[in-house]
Amino acid sequence: MISFRRVGIILNVILLAFLAASAPWPVLADDGGTLLSQAKQAFGQLPATISSEGNPITPEKVALGKILFYETRISVDGTVSCARCHPMGLYAADGLRKSIGNNSKVNPRNAPTILNAASQMSAHWIGNRLSVEDQAKQALTGPPSFGMPSYEAAENKLKEIKGYPALFQKAFPGQKEPVTADNFAKALGAFERTLVTPSPFDGYLKGNKTGLSDSEKRGLQTFMQAGCAGCHAGPYLGGQMYQKFGIIEPYWKYTKSADIDEGRYTVTKNESDKYVFKVPILRNVGRTAPYFHDGSTDHLYDAVWIMGKVQLAKDLSKTQVEDILSFLRALTGSIPEKDLEIPILPPSE
Amino acid sequence: MISFRRVGIILNVILLAFLAASAPWPVLADDGGTLLSQAKQAFGQLPATISSEGNPITPEKVALGKILFYETRISVDGTVSCARCHPMGLYAADGLRKSIGNNSKVNPRNAPTILNAASQMSAHWIGNRLSVEDQAKQALTGPPSFGMPSYEAAENKLKEIKGYPALFQKAFPGQKEPVTADNFAKALGAFERTLVTPSPFDGYLKGNKTGLSDSEKRGLQTFMQAGCAGCHAGPYLGGQMYQKFGIIEPYWKYTKSADIDEGRYTVTKNESDKYVFKVPILRNVGRTAPYFHDGSTDHLYDAVWIMGKVQLAKDLSKTQVEDILSFLRALTGSIPEKDLEIPILPPSE
Repeated sequence: MISFRRVGIILNVILLAFLAASAPWPVLADDGGTLLSQAKQAFGQLPATISSEGNPITPEKVALGKILFYETRISVDGTVSCARCHPMGLYAADGLRKSIGNNSKVNPRNAPTILNAASQMSAHWIGNRLSVEDQAKQALTGPPSFGMPSYEAAENKLKEIKGYPALFQKAFPGQKEPVTADNFAKALGAFERTLVTPSPFDGYLKGNKTGLSDSEKRGLQTFMQAGCAGCHAGPYLGGQMYQKFGIIEPYWKYTKSADIDEGRYTVTKNESDKYVFKVPILRNVGRTAPYFHDGSTDHLYDAVWIMGKVQLAKDLSKTQVEDILSFLRALTGSIPEKDLEIPILPPSE
Repeated sequence: MISFRRVGIILNVILLAFLAASAPWPVLADDGGTLLSQAKQAFGQLPATISSEGNPITPEKVALGKILFYETRISVDGTVSCARCHPMGLYAADGLRKSIGNNSKVNPRNAPTILNAASQMSAHWIGNRLSVEDQAKQALTGPPSFGMPSYEAAENKLKEIKGYPALFQKAFPGQKEPVTADNFAKALGAFERTLVTPSPFDGYLKGNKTGLSDSEKRGLQTFMQAGCAGCHAGPYLGGQMYQKFGIIEPYWKYTKSADIDEGRYTVTKNESDKYVFKVPILRNVGRTAPYFHDGSTDHLYDAVWIMGKVQLAKDLSKTQVEDILSFLRALTGSIPEKDLEIPILPPSE
């Protein structure tokens, strides 16, 4: 069955393809309302939190999840917490090409920010995690992340830390043995579902026409008219589909990739999934360098130009790229103050 | 020249040795005022911040220092910040026997908390860092910490990150080239000099006789009468002298040390400095397991008993150790709320 959301996305893609083909391009940004109404159609409104039927957000789960986010004592070498690869001060990405986990093991791909990440159809670049909850759970035993030998071993580490049993009990009332990897995942997922970052662009989308500057508006228009919004659609500007990286030309012709990543093919073994990745969300993209699945591109300018070249067959001009950069920087949001507070972790004894 | 502070400490040691020798022991804690007056004499009052003539605390330096505290992009592998070994949620220690730095290199000794650390006569277990500022600076090129090849290389990394030059200019006004390793150290030092954690014990020291429970008072009395306060004196309960670890018996007879550490001898090459370490401060000690310079002891109970045995020739009873533990837990302080906020770091471009 195809969901209403998916239908909406498909309609957006058609609309934007139509705009890209038909509109006189480039057009000066207008304040008459056309740009705003097209943007509303393409992106919609940012919700306050990202809900999930399977994991309803409760204050107790969020509080526990936030504590667990900083917990290093449950990793195999005692140095890895979620915050290691997703430090809030760097917009919940780590600035590395590829994250470095326990015992300095290198992850296969660049760590995406977890801000707004719960909105996506799946987690990780190749969609090999079903949800933020699934990602959190699998991180526990992921060889280059927490590196625990089994979920049971991770659960035992949690149980050994004084204070966790009571916190899990509170977050998962009525359960006899609440300290489980599944509940670890649910608590972290609930926390992540609150990590939504409203930005100047959202003021504009709500109808405040002066919420964006002229260059930001030109960038928005170019972003839509060049076809970027065909994939980077919806309130998070992406995260809703898979797409080949290099539709027109191989991506590695322009990136400084050290090797060629077969992308989603690794998961499905379908030939058509070669070099296919999840379309990343673009919120806070101005703060989460380096770029692409392999972090091979340091500057957002280059990333935007490369995307035009290999996805849209467009050699974007300096002005066009700079306008798009202005717009993308207007997607830098505010991290809610409460999410910038470090919780005190339970004592070890 | 001997400082007034040093004279004060020596007087305390004499007083406490006298108490330990003369008082009927154990004596029930009293509320008549004797215990409080002895405690005031031994420990004094906790200041609000830890001042330094060489590095006056300014809001701009503190703000910059707090940002730099979370900065990973200036380490050789991009994974090490000050916060890695001193996470606030774990009372600014990392829970490891020995901290693990860049490329998973193991530090020679256990990472002490940086809360209240600026109060000490020197930094690091063997006093091979003159101050918190010196520690911060040397960490930049420390092979197992940030691991940068030179101060210049670290300064260049700082200069490359957009936003730092302006922040350094603000914190060090009038300097032509403020982005230096020395100013990095001063900013971090200024931040650390604000990290003072008042605890229930300080309420008691201010005259609130009900600020400690009966068992905490018994613990305080035992702590002083057994002779612990001979070395763990002053407002931070330590940090003011070097002392041999194992006055009565070698420490490694009781700890689970993997190897024997020659301590300050490594620095001075004086035979008399063999197995000599800086007396650690005890504030928040209940939250900074594992214990000793090599993190060889997991439980505070064991650490207290071992200290009695090898330093004071005392086989402390279960009740005595438990009373001391009660007292030590009353040294767990509040981390100021502002120090539990994560600052947003400057963008990389």
